[in-house]
Amino acid sequence: MAGASFSDDDRHFMRVALSLSQRGLGNVWPNPAVGCVIVSASGEIVGRGWTKPGGRPHAERVALDQAGENARGATAYVTLEPCSHFGKSPPCALGLIEAGVSRVISALEDPDPRVSGRGHQMLRDAGIVVETGLLAAEAHAHNAGFLLRVTEDRPLITLKLAGSLDGRSSLANGASQWITGSRAREKGHYYRANHDGILVGANTVIADNPDLRCRIAGRENHSPVRVILDRTVQVSPDCKLAQSAQETPTWLVVASGEESRAEKIFAKTAVKVLSARCADGHFDLHDVMHVLAKQGLTRILVESGGKLAAALLQHKLIDRIIHFQAPGIIGADGHGIIAQLGLQNLDLMQRFKRRSSENVGQDYLISYDKITD
Amino acid sequence: MAGASFSDDDRHFMRVALSLSQRGLGNVWPNPAVGCVIVSASGEIVGRGWTKPGGRPHAERVALDQAGENARGATAYVTLEPCSHFGKSPPCALGLIEAGVSRVISALEDPDPRVSGRGHQMLRDAGIVVETGLLAAEAHAHNAGFLLRVTEDRPLITLKLAGSLDGRSSLANGASQWITGSRAREKGHYYRANHDGILVGANTVIADNPDLRCRIAGRENHSPVRVILDRTVQVSPDCKLAQSAQETPTWLVVASGEESRAEKIFAKTAVKVLSARCADGHFDLHDVMHVLAKQGLTRILVESGGKLAAALLQHKLIDRIIHFQAPGIIGADGHGIIAQLGLQNLDLMQRFKRRSSENVGQDYLISYDKITD
Repeated sequence: MAGASFSDDDRHFMRVALSLSQRGLGNVWPNPAVGCVIVSASGEIVGRGWTKPGGRPHAERVALDQAGENARGATAYVTLEPCSHFGKSPPCALGLIEAGVSRVISALEDPDPRVSGRGHQMLRDAGIVVETGLLAAEAHAHNAGFLLRVTEDRPLITLKLAGSLDGRSSLANGASQWITGSRAREKGHYYRANHDGILVGANTVIADNPDLRCRIAGRENHSPVRVILDRTVQVSPDCKLAQSAQETPTWLVVASGEESRAEKIFAKTAVKVLSARCADGHFDLHDVMHVLAKQGLTRILVESGGKLAAALLQHKLIDRIIHFQAPGIIGADGHGIIAQLGLQNLDLMQRFKRRSSENVGQDYLISYDKITD
Repeated sequence: MAGASFSDDDRHFMRVALSLSQRGLGNVWPNPAVGCVIVSASGEIVGRGWTKPGGRPHAERVALDQAGENARGATAYVTLEPCSHFGKSPPCALGLIEAGVSRVISALEDPDPRVSGRGHQMLRDAGIVVETGLLAAEAHAHNAGFLLRVTEDRPLITLKLAGSLDGRSSLANGASQWITGSRAREKGHYYRANHDGILVGANTVIADNPDLRCRIAGRENHSPVRVILDRTVQVSPDCKLAQSAQETPTWLVVASGEESRAEKIFAKTAVKVLSARCADGHFDLHDVMHVLAKQGLTRILVESGGKLAAALLQHKLIDRIIHFQAPGIIGADGHGIIAQLGLQNLDLMQRFKRRSSENVGQDYLISYDKITD
């Protein structure tokens, strides 16, 4: 039950489970990235699991398989309520019951209406002691993407910014290689690996013809879906993102009504065409996010130019910012990391909450979270 | 001698002396801010001193007076070579000799040609053991202003920047109150207190009519000289800086040839008129700095608008940056913290070395040093 008192050992084991859960981020969508630790009565970890690539097997199943007979009488720490519905595999709650665990501690109730309390209830009905809410805030932060998709029908949106200390991402002549250093770029690839999708605008694709894959050795297969916002189908089917769509998915989001034209243009590629509502010559960005959520994406990394970043800000669609800041100055003739916002009053300035900062080579990485009311 | 090996105790006492020395920063110009600790043979601190406001008495004199008879046979730790010349008071080297100290450890040789090794020599000639170079880098950083004035005939120049995370210091309509918070503004006043002069352009004075005094309780008398760069004498004698020049000095730097006109305009105020060379309708900023150094200033804090900041950068005249960064976004229509620099190539971007960062209320203060070859 919520409000239960937990021991330091409980907290320790849940932290281990949370740490394991993160291994799934970016490669388990549309499922949540869950971690599970099975601890015997004598306090020994006998099973550890996390959601596997593609979203199954679930963390509990992996941990129970590892624990085997040792699960009997043990405590299971799970970062999210075990599922209770029969889908492609039997529910994890049933697995825990059959394995004979005597106590289940979970961090969060699953808001998915197919679960939402039923998993915990199924365990209790089987006589298992169930306690919830341990390290709930951390678990919530780890699974913010999954939770937003269920509760707000959109993915978590993280904006990546990179520029000089005076907020410029390129010179007046467009030169931007390299403002930040190689360590910052490598770190950027790490963020790609733990996101489900990476979002850019058509202008970025046309100007830079980027690849946008994760190029960390050993993590190449962790590249996110590359999503291009291209209202009027300006991007060429010869671009790298289209040509490599067979190996790494590329989705092209066009204005409603432009689907068939786009499909014809990209017929010889593996690009998937999606569409979203537009108004006044702009995408309805909320609808874009609903479309991406419907496709299963839970975590979006925005690596766009300043205009799309500004539009997302204006729609209050930025949940997190990762800001790589080089210790150099470009001056006001450089291009801003964020385009015009048209603020008339400083009270309207969007403020964020600084979460952390760290040295990344010569550069500085400052992370921010949206301020929630 | 340089290269001497020092003990942990030596390092400890020099750190105390360095810490004391900082109390003088901003109020001892044109003298160096020195710290001195006298330690008895039994390892007890018997005298502590730092350069007093106005530049005298010197740190050694203060510490020796405090130590009295206990100085006999003691070790003196000084952050800069003791002076050897007879000026308004007898030289500190003589004071140390007369007090009977047996050992002097100093951090730095004084580059002032009136001292430069002679202080150490005078002590050695009197049979005192002299060792130098202990924590020299720290002592050099503390006295960078004094040292630059002696070696390069200009003050140390620190640029203060304050803006949003995307590098904007005001909205398109000019609104800038408040991007950063009250804690950042208070910290800014602390920086005013430890600088000798504060530099602004005429445009800032005309637009904002600022006061620029240190308003930290108990430090009001630590306000630096307010220096206005006003090539063509545009500033009004009715502005706050001119009207308060009786209590806190205000200097107006005008183009050579404009002195008498400026003096007439400001005749009823206590403003001091200085002049510097101009070319092509701009100040020769190196000459401006020579003029300020000639007046005795060793540490300048620049609180100008983006244009003067950009001009100082282009002249490679920024030694340090203190950057207050609010966790908010203004967008590209806001005014940049640095004006146009006209960079054609990213290799030309001026890079700095990040020294430290700290939370200042909701804002972030990141400090940078010039990269020296």
